[in-house]
Amino acid sequence: MAFKISPLSPQNIQDLPPLSGVRIATAKAGIKYKDRTDLLFIVFDKSASVAGVFTRSKCPSAPVEHCRASLPHGIARGVIVNSGNANAFTGRKGRHTTNEIMCAAASALKVRKNEIFIASTGVIGEPMDASGIVSLLPNMAETAEEGNWLEAAKAIMTTDTFPKLATRRFDCGGETVTINGIAKGAGMIAPDMATMLSFVVSDAKISSDILQSMLSEAVQGSFNSITVDSDTSTSDTLMVFATGKESFPCLTHKTDPRYEIFLKHLSALLHELALQIVCDGEGARHLIEVNVTGATTDNAAKIIARSIANSPLVKTAIAGEDANWGRVVMAIGKAGVEVDRDLLTIWFGEHRLAFNGERDPEYCEETIDAYMQGKHIVIRVDIGLGLGKATVWSCDLTKEYVMINSDYRS
Amino acid sequence: MAFKISPLSPQNIQDLPPLSGVRIATAKAGIKYKDRTDLLFIVFDKSASVAGVFTRSKCPSAPVEHCRASLPHGIARGVIVNSGNANAFTGRKGRHTTNEIMCAAASALKVRKNEIFIASTGVIGEPMDASGIVSLLPNMAETAEEGNWLEAAKAIMTTDTFPKLATRRFDCGGETVTINGIAKGAGMIAPDMATMLSFVVSDAKISSDILQSMLSEAVQGSFNSITVDSDTSTSDTLMVFATGKESFPCLTHKTDPRYEIFLKHLSALLHELALQIVCDGEGARHLIEVNVTGATTDNAAKIIARSIANSPLVKTAIAGEDANWGRVVMAIGKAGVEVDRDLLTIWFGEHRLAFNGERDPEYCEETIDAYMQGKHIVIRVDIGLGLGKATVWSCDLTKEYVMINSDYRS
Repeated sequence: MAFKISPLSPQNIQDLPPLSGVRIATAKAGIKYKDRTDLLFIVFDKSASVAGVFTRSKCPSAPVEHCRASLPHGIARGVIVNSGNANAFTGRKGRHTTNEIMCAAASALKVRKNEIFIASTGVIGEPMDASGIVSLLPNMAETAEEGNWLEAAKAIMTTDTFPKLATRRFDCGGETVTINGIAKGAGMIAPDMATMLSFVVSDAKISSDILQSMLSEAVQGSFNSITVDSDTSTSDTLMVFATGKESFPCLTHKTDPRYEIFLKHLSALLHELALQIVCDGEGARHLIEVNVTGATTDNAAKIIARSIANSPLVKTAIAGEDANWGRVVMAIGKAGVEVDRDLLTIWFGEHRLAFNGERDPEYCEETIDAYMQGKHIVIRVDIGLGLGKATVWSCDLTKEYVMINSDYRS
Repeated sequence: MAFKISPLSPQNIQDLPPLSGVRIATAKAGIKYKDRTDLLFIVFDKSASVAGVFTRSKCPSAPVEHCRASLPHGIARGVIVNSGNANAFTGRKGRHTTNEIMCAAASALKVRKNEIFIASTGVIGEPMDASGIVSLLPNMAETAEEGNWLEAAKAIMTTDTFPKLATRRFDCGGETVTINGIAKGAGMIAPDMATMLSFVVSDAKISSDILQSMLSEAVQGSFNSITVDSDTSTSDTLMVFATGKESFPCLTHKTDPRYEIFLKHLSALLHELALQIVCDGEGARHLIEVNVTGATTDNAAKIIARSIANSPLVKTAIAGEDANWGRVVMAIGKAGVEVDRDLLTIWFGEHRLAFNGERDPEYCEETIDAYMQGKHIVIRVDIGLGLGKATVWSCDLTKEYVMINSDYRS
């Protein structure tokens, strides 16, 4: 399961700053992968606030069901994540496995069961045995250390070719706060509510309801605006924790001026993680940014942008470095929302290719060919009807995507 | 643009029986392809009834707009089809090109312009010059012959690897009638109203409104139940013509007992053509049939079946001969309609893989592996909630699909 590192990977992958009272341990539970870590335990030494968004799949995994049920309690003391098995569509046994892991973690930390959050990623439908995980937890709880964020990001990888991390440090009402986040991709990515798996921790003190409100807002322009392959996972989980350092007076109202500051930085961090997921989309060679303006509403713009970003024909054209804007027209046409063919304008980068319902008379194949050889392709469409706009990020569809997914399970 | 013949191609490809008064000519107009025919002219010696269904794309091609406008006139005398250029998103020039071709055809046949139907398939957005076509039409009108159906099917191919034809001959109220049909694929196939291009002609006498009613019914279980790549074309056109032989009293009412007889055979013929398109889906190595039962409504069943049939992860798994039913669960979950994970049952062929929300205890990897090596894979899902059912046909997603579409335009 080792793949060549994506050509879209960040130049440098660095560890994140430690957060006080947030201890991390990883281990090799041998769930599926050999000779690598596949188990992550994040321990909060004191009660942390918690917010989460999860897949809208009608067939969610057992861990997703558990997290959703525990969220209203509003307190987190530990997070367990394993890679190699999604524990999804595993029936009563799957719920039993989740429960056993939670009980073992709660007992190791001497906290309540609904203060433990859990996520699993990997194969769907394969029964998952708890014992290999359960036996490791007491020692992990003891040896967990502040820092270790890079190891955490590595332990949750599946077909990812690089670990995904991001951090922000900023002044928030006179107090410096930090947000650290990790995420994993890399296939079955078309988040409808969140993404595969992402965990974000800040040392700010924020009530859980306010944290949830920020998260729901920040996820729209980040994880809910990316797609690798249009396939929404059963396990999408994005959780944010705030450990609440003493010097930071608790943020409990939207009217608090720190709300907008924190939200801005949280949004930027989620956006950075989401883009890392797209850049590590299975087989990806090009990052595709689709900007739609001039639609009747923002929602219509997003539907059009998604239709373009998910079209296999658009994505294979980008893989072939071919500015096949005719396929963009096709994808706009099939989106089903209001458009007028004869008002469309289409650009690739700065190059206007189509205008007034036909090919731009200034169109120059050579210039555009050079642009298409870049790694970051921007497709811009103006619908010409209104003020609605949206941006969606995706990646190209390559032979490697097919190869990876033709024998992922075996 | 020559591809290896699809392994799912029919064993024998035979010409169709000639239809009296239906003359066919093909020619090399050099629109895009070299050394092959790319222009088809079907001539009806007497007025034929006509029905059509077209793409629901909001960016339809100029020929689609023309056909839609001419349909209410209800009379057809000629059909012109070219391959190599779709004349879509070509603006005023495109409409002008369509008009020139129609005028030339009408003049060659001495009929009215709105009795000529036209379809174009190929690259989108490339201006199309009428002159090369127009100059050939008078001679084609003169030399067209009864028969030549195989040549007709060949002239409209683009990335197709085999010509698509089907015929039915049956007794309809004491009179033997024939239906001949041709079609082409092979990419941008997710018909929302019809398919890429298909033309069907019968010698029965049927009023245009009744023919339209039959077509709208017959298209649902055939062309509207297939998908190659989820991308709906700008040019989908399916037309049926009835030339009306004298011995067949005109069918003008749904209550006529011949209505159901004709509809049955028309449906079967459209179904056969639609499956040929899937079997020639770009890069296809496996035919996938998705049967959904037990959904709350037929419409819900179709949404679920489409979600499975369009999922890149399901399609790549089939390409890899991997019974990855976990991805089927994913596709059911993301479809958005009502399902209860714990009531789902999933079969591949006769092999039940999942039951009661988890893997079937009887599941045997070896047996299923043998099944997956077949060319025709049936995925059956019972939702366990109601009586809604639907079937959708698709094909697998292979490296060849990506290769074909990474450099189609160049």
